[in-house]
Amino acid sequence: MLEKYISAAKRDKQSDLVLKNATYLDVFTATLKKGDIAVVGEKIVGVGEYRGATEIDCTGLTVLPGYIDGHVHIESSQLSPEEFASLIVPRGTTTIIADPHEITNVCGMAGCEYIAKASQSVPLDVKIQLPSCVPATPFETSGAILNGKDIAENIVKDYIFGLGEFMNYPGVINCDPDVIQKLEAAHSAGKVIDGHAPAVYGYDLNAYLCGGISTDHECVLKEEIEEKISKGVYVHIRHGSSTQNLGNAKYITDGNMRRFILCTDDRHAADLKEKGHLDDALRKLVANGLDPVRAVICATLNCAECYGLKWHGAIAPFYLADLVVVDNLKNFNAKYVVKSGKLVAKDGKPLFDTSVRYLPASVLNTVHLKEMQASDFILRLKGKKAKAMTIEPGGVVTGCEIVEVDSRNGDAQVKGTDILKLCVVERHKMTGNIGKALFKGYGFKGGALGITIAHDSHNIILMGDDNESMAKAANKLKEIGGGMVIVDSNSGEIHSLTLDIAGLMSSRDAESLQRDSRALIERAHSMGVKREYEAFMSLAFLSLAVIPKLKVTDAGLFDVETFSFTDINA
Amino acid sequence: MLEKYISAAKRDKQSDLVLKNATYLDVFTATLKKGDIAVVGEKIVGVGEYRGATEIDCTGLTVLPGYIDGHVHIESSQLSPEEFASLIVPRGTTTIIADPHEITNVCGMAGCEYIAKASQSVPLDVKIQLPSCVPATPFETSGAILNGKDIAENIVKDYIFGLGEFMNYPGVINCDPDVIQKLEAAHSAGKVIDGHAPAVYGYDLNAYLCGGISTDHECVLKEEIEEKISKGVYVHIRHGSSTQNLGNAKYITDGNMRRFILCTDDRHAADLKEKGHLDDALRKLVANGLDPVRAVICATLNCAECYGLKWHGAIAPFYLADLVVVDNLKNFNAKYVVKSGKLVAKDGKPLFDTSVRYLPASVLNTVHLKEMQASDFILRLKGKKAKAMTIEPGGVVTGCEIVEVDSRNGDAQVKGTDILKLCVVERHKMTGNIGKALFKGYGFKGGALGITIAHDSHNIILMGDDNESMAKAANKLKEIGGGMVIVDSNSGEIHSLTLDIAGLMSSRDAESLQRDSRALIERAHSMGVKREYEAFMSLAFLSLAVIPKLKVTDAGLFDVETFSFTDINA
Repeated sequence: MLEKYISAAKRDKQSDLVLKNATYLDVFTATLKKGDIAVVGEKIVGVGEYRGATEIDCTGLTVLPGYIDGHVHIESSQLSPEEFASLIVPRGTTTIIADPHEITNVCGMAGCEYIAKASQSVPLDVKIQLPSCVPATPFETSGAILNGKDIAENIVKDYIFGLGEFMNYPGVINCDPDVIQKLEAAHSAGKVIDGHAPAVYGYDLNAYLCGGISTDHECVLKEEIEEKISKGVYVHIRHGSSTQNLGNAKYITDGNMRRFILCTDDRHAADLKEKGHLDDALRKLVANGLDPVRAVICATLNCAECYGLKWHGAIAPFYLADLVVVDNLKNFNAKYVVKSGKLVAKDGKPLFDTSVRYLPASVLNTVHLKEMQASDFILRLKGKKAKAMTIEPGGVVTGCEIVEVDSRNGDAQVKGTDILKLCVVERHKMTGNIGKALFKGYGFKGGALGITIAHDSHNIILMGDDNESMAKAANKLKEIGGGMVIVDSNSGEIHSLTLDIAGLMSSRDAESLQRDSRALIERAHSMGVKREYEAFMSLAFLSLAVIPKLKVTDAGLFDVETFSFTDINA
Repeated sequence: MLEKYISAAKRDKQSDLVLKNATYLDVFTATLKKGDIAVVGEKIVGVGEYRGATEIDCTGLTVLPGYIDGHVHIESSQLSPEEFASLIVPRGTTTIIADPHEITNVCGMAGCEYIAKASQSVPLDVKIQLPSCVPATPFETSGAILNGKDIAENIVKDYIFGLGEFMNYPGVINCDPDVIQKLEAAHSAGKVIDGHAPAVYGYDLNAYLCGGISTDHECVLKEEIEEKISKGVYVHIRHGSSTQNLGNAKYITDGNMRRFILCTDDRHAADLKEKGHLDDALRKLVANGLDPVRAVICATLNCAECYGLKWHGAIAPFYLADLVVVDNLKNFNAKYVVKSGKLVAKDGKPLFDTSVRYLPASVLNTVHLKEMQASDFILRLKGKKAKAMTIEPGGVVTGCEIVEVDSRNGDAQVKGTDILKLCVVERHKMTGNIGKALFKGYGFKGGALGITIAHDSHNIILMGDDNESMAKAANKLKEIGGGMVIVDSNSGEIHSLTLDIAGLMSSRDAESLQRDSRALIERAHSMGVKREYEAFMSLAFLSLAVIPKLKVTDAGLFDVETFSFTDINA
């Protein structure tokens, strides 16, 4: 096998593919150089003057190593891994460190396996991090639980690259035995452990890192970044749809340069399609003043080093031929993308079959629910005063407001008021659990809204002003196998969008999905949802019982500040 | 296991060892910082304010990560691995990448195993590189042959860290099938392959690197260093006894900084004892103007990254507690050395038992020879004119001079001339091979000199002016199991120094060995060996048939320029 590389390297044989007349980034010296880049099979064999069976003229263009996304949840795009790849590969990303945390909360290890297998048909290296915190909190019913024993069993598998972001940082710092078992298993297997420790400093940070954790994508403050890097942490520069910390690049110095890497974490399909992926991060980093050579090194060699991806992230002999040819180091428009030696995208369009879908039964029909009745949504209050959740537009932190609500026949009456019922219906294990709450100020009127994306356990979140519509919405979500729904009590119509994969992602193409998604969102706004909210996705975080202040899970109303369930009666 | 680190990190429990009031090097930001360094078991758990069961006050001192030697042949010290460690650990070296090329040429895999096992009793991480080129040339008889199949069988073993310097670069470039098998085996096993490719450039270098080779310690020229780094090679800055390229540090830039590492390759016991190991390299690099912080990073983090030594090479939570406490970053005098959390040296003296020796039968009594007779050394010449080797003092390149030699009874007569007989006697497989040559200008008179170190196959090299003495010398070397010998034909005395381990190294302590070694060398000089030669060690390279011009192996006189055996008759 090596002979074919060696003989082409010394020009005894023609190469398979040559990027002619390239200006290319030498990440090892941080300089731009010129030459023909010769590729044989999946490897670069050399730079010099080469001839190839296929030649691409790169005069005036710049060749970079393929970008590596250091931390991403594919599920946040609501797209299948195949469709996700069809959007990001043409942008220049050739490797991702994927943490299938969301789908694993729904489907367990079958979710991990699905992401791994579905990714095999696309020209994208998908390194699977075993989700470390499933469920994310003990205050809700998830589709799966991965305890220490489960992690130990699975971390050793060949297709598992490492252990996903260890969000349960109090568990690490307090030596929770189950947490310790998880960390020790990953450590014994010699696998990298990703971190997630927002605003953890000092001795707590020392303790957290003694779990063998080596990255963090939650840093934003100078002192936090500097402390973490100093303690051996690779710090992600994140370019998600809502969470961004591109500003971290301000703290890059000559001395700490090699410890910054790029990631996207959570990025919506619309952003991927319209703005881009890591190419967009690079564009913005450079626009913000970061040296483009440094920016690219963060997205390539640094990330390869962080994750021990040998022969990745550089343009040199024997390195994987993952290459992106851009117009320049300002716009980063990808003219060509080469993955493992194959030309896989041109002018932003994929050259690979984007219609393939791997769809195992294990990730389909994941809404497990008995037929819901209007009576299931009766909310009994002791008196008139009750706690209602509120939310600031654009955020995920909720508030708590004491509101007055009338009751009739032992059921809170919200129709015609600015208050809605907000229920979380367990959808994994047929427990019949319904957590009930009130929400003020969303604006929606005349029916119900529902969604099967509800962080991180992904039960059904329903919001509505009558019980009948809420039951219909739940039943519709069951019928379609997950997704988003609107029940219009005036017309009797039900409108829905299917997210057939675990109730989180669609097997459809991004374009038609977005078109239908936009229509459904528009319908929600037309039924009163204030424009400052994201209609469905603002609901999806109302069950995340680790972010203040008042949340609701299938187990009930939860006060994040006291970290305990709370009575709705005020 | 992790609990003990975590609980100490957050100060719930006392640490085992604390370096108090330290100034320490943060290699991740390339800055000096202050704090107490807390150690539990073999790990650093944090820097801050800590208390420990043992505390060492480091006020006014500087703590660095333990040094890593990226490439070294222990055998060149003529010391056992245990004694070698007793010299280098107190200097601050805590990890070495050891290539037991010499002993493996004598003992085969038993040599590798010996180095690995002998190293287990000393506080030094010894990572064993499987020697890739045994024998180094096909023009001699070595004690062992490791062909592609042997490499494939052994590279997968747990105690084998990687594949040693691939000196046979023509074999790589020309796709020699046996070479390819070796490289593919190492590559499949996911193990690092060290390089050795002096003055290999351009397409040849591309081809060589397509063998999956990732380091080089033979660079000296700016353009060679720059090209190699640009092509993904980690470049060693070498501080051997004779081969040095500390000047490489001149070519360090902000951009390529992470690709330079330190090594010693071949370093004699006297230098280790009197000058030092990597501490001496650091001292000289800094004296030559290299920023001391950069120098230390090359000797620590960079080397750890190059060899994939996770959790090595830095002072940060969860990193291995390999630490050296120095007086300052100019003198690098090691006051304390901590290896895997244990204080192992103080004020340059080892605190561990230096008397232990692992001495398996497989590396002892390695001189296999029939009883030699004076007649074995008869040298028949066709006429008066013959080729004689010469050597420039201080070098290993030999010359060829046509000399006139009388013969009597069919044997060349050299006594009383400036010419000596130089014979290489095969000592591994009882082949009876004797390669015969003439040498001019060494100065020795009145007997014979012999040594069982003869690069790289380590047969016996003998030099003398009478056949009787040469036979006695060979027989003495057999009797003592290898080493160095002087036969004085005037007094009839035989003086020797035993190198009991493979005929290359002594199981004695460095001090008494050096004392006796110096006495023997002095005796050789008193018998005429010119002072500009190293008496015995200058002989040891006269059989190295890859360095010009004229060499002699057990198979005969070899012309390196034509790469073929040559007739002694001129």
